[in-house]
Amino acid sequence: MNAVPTALLRETAGLSATVTRPIPGSRKVHVAGSRADLRVPMREIALADTPSMFGVERNAPFAVYDTSGPYTDPAYAVDLAAGLPALRAHWIEERADSERLVDFTSPFTRRHAHAAQLADVRFTHIPKPRRAKNGANITQMHYARRGIITPEMEFVAIRENQRLEAIHEAHLRKQHPGQSFGASLPGRITPEFVREEIARGRAILPCNINHPESEPMIIGRNFLVKINANIGNSALMSSIAEEVEKMVWAIRWGADTVMDLSTGRHIHETREWILRNAPVPIGTVPIYQALEKVGGIAEDLSWEIFRDTLIEQAEQGVDYFTIHAGVRLPFVPLTARRVTGIVSRGGSIMAKWCLAHHRENFLYEHFEDICAIMKAYDVAFSLGDGLRPGSIADANDAAQFAELDTLGELTQIAWKHDVQTMIEGPGHVPMHLIKENMDRQLEKCGQAPFYTLGPLTTDIAPGYDHITSAIGAAMIGWFGTAMLCYVTPKEHLGLPDKNDVREGIIAYKIAAHAADLAKGHPGAQARDNALSKARFEFRWDDQFNLGLDPEKAKEFHDETLPKDAHKSAHFCSMCGPKFCSMKITQDVRDYAQEHGIDATTALQQGMQDKADEFRKTGTDIYRTV
Amino acid sequence: MNAVPTALLRETAGLSATVTRPIPGSRKVHVAGSRADLRVPMREIALADTPSMFGVERNAPFAVYDTSGPYTDPAYAVDLAAGLPALRAHWIEERADSERLVDFTSPFTRRHAHAAQLADVRFTHIPKPRRAKNGANITQMHYARRGIITPEMEFVAIRENQRLEAIHEAHLRKQHPGQSFGASLPGRITPEFVREEIARGRAILPCNINHPESEPMIIGRNFLVKINANIGNSALMSSIAEEVEKMVWAIRWGADTVMDLSTGRHIHETREWILRNAPVPIGTVPIYQALEKVGGIAEDLSWEIFRDTLIEQAEQGVDYFTIHAGVRLPFVPLTARRVTGIVSRGGSIMAKWCLAHHRENFLYEHFEDICAIMKAYDVAFSLGDGLRPGSIADANDAAQFAELDTLGELTQIAWKHDVQTMIEGPGHVPMHLIKENMDRQLEKCGQAPFYTLGPLTTDIAPGYDHITSAIGAAMIGWFGTAMLCYVTPKEHLGLPDKNDVREGIIAYKIAAHAADLAKGHPGAQARDNALSKARFEFRWDDQFNLGLDPEKAKEFHDETLPKDAHKSAHFCSMCGPKFCSMKITQDVRDYAQEHGIDATTALQQGMQDKADEFRKTGTDIYRTV
Repeated sequence: MNAVPTALLRETAGLSATVTRPIPGSRKVHVAGSRADLRVPMREIALADTPSMFGVERNAPFAVYDTSGPYTDPAYAVDLAAGLPALRAHWIEERADSERLVDFTSPFTRRHAHAAQLADVRFTHIPKPRRAKNGANITQMHYARRGIITPEMEFVAIRENQRLEAIHEAHLRKQHPGQSFGASLPGRITPEFVREEIARGRAILPCNINHPESEPMIIGRNFLVKINANIGNSALMSSIAEEVEKMVWAIRWGADTVMDLSTGRHIHETREWILRNAPVPIGTVPIYQALEKVGGIAEDLSWEIFRDTLIEQAEQGVDYFTIHAGVRLPFVPLTARRVTGIVSRGGSIMAKWCLAHHRENFLYEHFEDICAIMKAYDVAFSLGDGLRPGSIADANDAAQFAELDTLGELTQIAWKHDVQTMIEGPGHVPMHLIKENMDRQLEKCGQAPFYTLGPLTTDIAPGYDHITSAIGAAMIGWFGTAMLCYVTPKEHLGLPDKNDVREGIIAYKIAAHAADLAKGHPGAQARDNALSKARFEFRWDDQFNLGLDPEKAKEFHDETLPKDAHKSAHFCSMCGPKFCSMKITQDVRDYAQEHGIDATTALQQGMQDKADEFRKTGTDIYRTV
Repeated sequence: MNAVPTALLRETAGLSATVTRPIPGSRKVHVAGSRADLRVPMREIALADTPSMFGVERNAPFAVYDTSGPYTDPAYAVDLAAGLPALRAHWIEERADSERLVDFTSPFTRRHAHAAQLADVRFTHIPKPRRAKNGANITQMHYARRGIITPEMEFVAIRENQRLEAIHEAHLRKQHPGQSFGASLPGRITPEFVREEIARGRAILPCNINHPESEPMIIGRNFLVKINANIGNSALMSSIAEEVEKMVWAIRWGADTVMDLSTGRHIHETREWILRNAPVPIGTVPIYQALEKVGGIAEDLSWEIFRDTLIEQAEQGVDYFTIHAGVRLPFVPLTARRVTGIVSRGGSIMAKWCLAHHRENFLYEHFEDICAIMKAYDVAFSLGDGLRPGSIADANDAAQFAELDTLGELTQIAWKHDVQTMIEGPGHVPMHLIKENMDRQLEKCGQAPFYTLGPLTTDIAPGYDHITSAIGAAMIGWFGTAMLCYVTPKEHLGLPDKNDVREGIIAYKIAAHAADLAKGHPGAQARDNALSKARFEFRWDDQFNLGLDPEKAKEFHDETLPKDAHKSAHFCSMCGPKFCSMKITQDVRDYAQEHGIDATTALQQGMQDKADEFRKTGTDIYRTV
């Protein structure tokens, strides 16, 4: 951890070079949309030419989806104290359906804005919040249902098309001027398609009007599978500076959204620093902070305290809230015979409250009140699975599915209000029980996006739960889950450090991409093919740079073959310089060219006679050695 | 790498403490079979009592399958120069169907036995080889088909039953003396069942009579999924001492078999050291050494050189041979249009030979000669997939499936000779194409065990291919693959070091266990349940020790909560001491006890009215914030 003391955040750029160094072999590019202020960032990886032994060929640069924000742009001067530029501010303003308030609505926020003892940790350039004008609904779902394509929707359409739209098409245009390619490109995602999916509730575009710094992204099963990384300090460790650095680190490796799960000191101030510097949507679990406000005593929670917390966070700019409204009083006893009971923190807080008061969950009872808040800022629901299984033994049980049914019921209520909604899922599930989770979620929740934590496919590998869960995540992603919440190697054991965050994110980028491939997402395989071609042609640097972690790939390669000459060597460390499988394939190609591949059929026939002869041969011929 | 210089192997124990230190919290136990010399090793993990807050309870020790051999037994004095005790020697001798030869059959071996310049690297206590008496067939398959249950078969039956047989039953017996439990235990595997599966060809028990040091194990889809680890020096690096150490290291973490893929200097001598010290079956790819014998020129290979290599290795004790007899000449051109051509080293050697001579693969033509050698020593076939895909783009193509069909044909020939046979599989396959591989293998190869390398489910993560492939391995294991060949993080990049071996093995133990769970293997979930119970009850040490890597789990935990007191603390680092989900579950249990879980139904009904009321409520009530 290269943590920067909080006080220094304002004095310096505030980020260590580790998290902002350029990603090898690539540069930031922007693809222009229909208006001058709509520029979609991508990362373009430069590729070397195919070497002569494989037939000289130019390899076009390869553009990939880029979550890292301006931090990886050498032209951008990082200034954490100023925050990121407000990319979407003009789009929000020109809709003229929200207004800037004179002050924060939440008394808690107002107190924190002026408390002298917080001067050291406070973000100083806090903008005044915006809110929907009275009676207005300003959610992307509301616009979508009225047929409006927002700049945010166009942004994600371009972003999802990645290479197809950005680079490939540009190259095609250069080679065939005057021709139109837009429609003929395979599976091109249009802004209209984005609008339809959001209107239908099958995708969400989380973008609180108070987080104009965020680059729009979409979560839905007809788009690229997304991943979320959790950060957040706890009562035990971590500082604001570390959390901001961890957020920048997480998006560098590919986190599409980041959840701030802080529970310790300065939750409010930490969140402000994160939001003002986050180019990705930020999610939270508001009940965590509400619990802090009542001194950690779950029984003392009330709707009034929770409501103020929602407004406090909505006015800061949180893009989606996990709300455990499905942990209903009658479901709680269903967990009593479980091996691991209730393992969701939010779930157990609500369970405790329900039991203490012997009353129905106040989040459930006030669900429409919550919807009213959500739509005034365009905060999306992430309906929490507070009763998710915490072990293989508890997977797919009555408590879990009772809650899921309730989440389906709540989805319909949220949709009545045009509030964007996704559904959280488990957890710990053995492979053969995964599909039932997806099928049931689709059925009960009207195809609202599913957002799962793994699932872990076994409990027996503490220290490796990024792997036990990447298996389940890849499978459920293939089956239709829209976003995967990462699990780090420290799961169940401790708080992740920077290396754990990196390991967890890469494991989940793998799961998400494997799912995209299996779903046949248009264009997903292009990156596999480009990397495999580079591998086959011994373009070592291209192989590293096209990978999810170019730095580690190069480092691993250099441990065995450290010399620079080996980076262009036409062999690898497995077989050494004397013999090489790849080289032989070239012989095969020459042979096929010479003999004609169609000669194969004839050859095969000739050889079949030999095979028949074999089968006729008795068993006794070769008895002795 | 704590490599021991080769010369020192004979002077000292020869292994660094890293690879032999006791596995935390556990001890070696032996379960007795039907005869005094049949003692099946297991590792018994001691568990603490359930703490009082969860209701005091004794937790019986938990026995797990143990691949580590005598090395983890503190009572065993490691002496690499002497080799392991010949566990099976008496069983082999008493069958009286094989005899000890006066000298080695292979001229190559005899030369190496006397060459002065090899004195420094030679294992000195090389036993003279055994071979079937003239005309005899001594394979486990041959015995099985004649209705004979060998001690090897009984050994694996006990071993597969693990905890059920070994510990659980013992405890039941203590509690209920006089009662019989054997038959009533769920899914108990009997020696007769083992025999049937081997006779049917659905499982193999690789155990060369010249490797009596090996502890019998079984590979088949009705048994626990197994994993293989590859070791082996190359032209570029590694020494004999490192390879022996790597083998011991690999079985410590759970490798069920080890393949020695050495290609560099002293292949013969390295293999001898490994075999004499290996308690697990050893596999090789004999064509690698044959190629060395002809100076690396594939065209110069001949049946005679290959045949001598087979006999050389069979008389050393190699338990299974990868034979690329399915790389037929007519299939080779089918790879010409692939993105990554032929990536199997053995496959490309044979392809090169076929092309150079424009002749059919001599392994295919001499397949019955090979069977004759295999059955004289009981070496099992691992029919190599030399045309497996090396990229997502090439998965499930014509070349791959043409070879698989041929492997099915060869399986039938091997079975005519009662030679035990398994089939190698890919490679690189996206998730949606994995099942086709398994279904086709079962159909074409008569249910012979499938042994796959991964498969990798995406190509875009060099440096993390243990994860890309653990996803595919878990899935194909669930579908029926019997053994998974591990992939380390260094795949495609360099040669694995000790840490890579550990990472690769744990990833594959996870995949194998996840598959066992999904298949419903009897008893597999017992370990997940025991660990989850320990986790829930804050028995930290038990949680670590029941895991696949107790050392890493503890190390990770201690990074966040280093104090010893925290090992018994009733909270974890995620929530801290103030609030804890697990604690709340105890409240739920008390509540359920007090109110009766069946009260749930009534409660649920009462609450339903509330839900109905919700649905009737219009959307307009909560318009303002």
